[in-house]
Amino acid sequence: MLQKSAQLKKENNMKVSVIITLKKDVLDPQGKVIHQTLNDMGFNDINEIRQGKYFVIDTKETDEKIAKEKVKDMCKKLLVNLVIEDFKIIGSQ
Amino acid sequence: MLQKSAQLKKENNMKVSVIITLKKDVLDPQGKVIHQTLNDMGFNDINEIRQGKYFVIDTKETDEKIAKEKVKDMCKKLLVNLVIEDFKIIGSQ
Repeated sequence: MLQKSAQLKKENNMKVSVIITLKKDVLDPQGKVIHQTLNDMGFNDINEIRQGKYFVIDTKETDEKIAKEKVKDMCKKLLVNLVIEDFKIIGSQ
Repeated sequence: MLQKSAQLKKENNMKVSVIITLKKDVLDPQGKVIHQTLNDMGFNDINEIRQGKYFVIDTKETDEKIAKEKVKDMCKKLLVNLVIEDFKIIGSQ
């Protein structure tokens, strides 16, 4: 019984995903290079490409709301440069 | 009238987003370093962090299905290393 409850708890671990993008007015040289390369390869109908980062954070936290709050805290303290980047917590499971 | 139609067309340009992640069994050293750093900062309840890439591709294509197909093609030909990475087209607007 205890084992089952422990297993259940493990299964309820939250995985939270975050997308980090450059703010709209910040230049994205990587995106520009990729755009140019795709253009040279024949993909001619692209207006713009912007690159961002993506993190999946697998936490021991089981409560969705708390897990998201913690990830938000991690973003502000380490993962995101708030001067030039925005972040969006897109999901959890 | 023509101008309005052109404007409408511009507004209907598709923006397609792609998430690129390392396959499950591929080592993610960047994720490990971030995990360790967050751990040292006091976030002790993390099981694992995995980092990925994110692209927003703004195309001139107005048909959602065609736009997604083109982005899939770009992923296979340039953006994604299919040996070690997976990709997921997550949305368009």
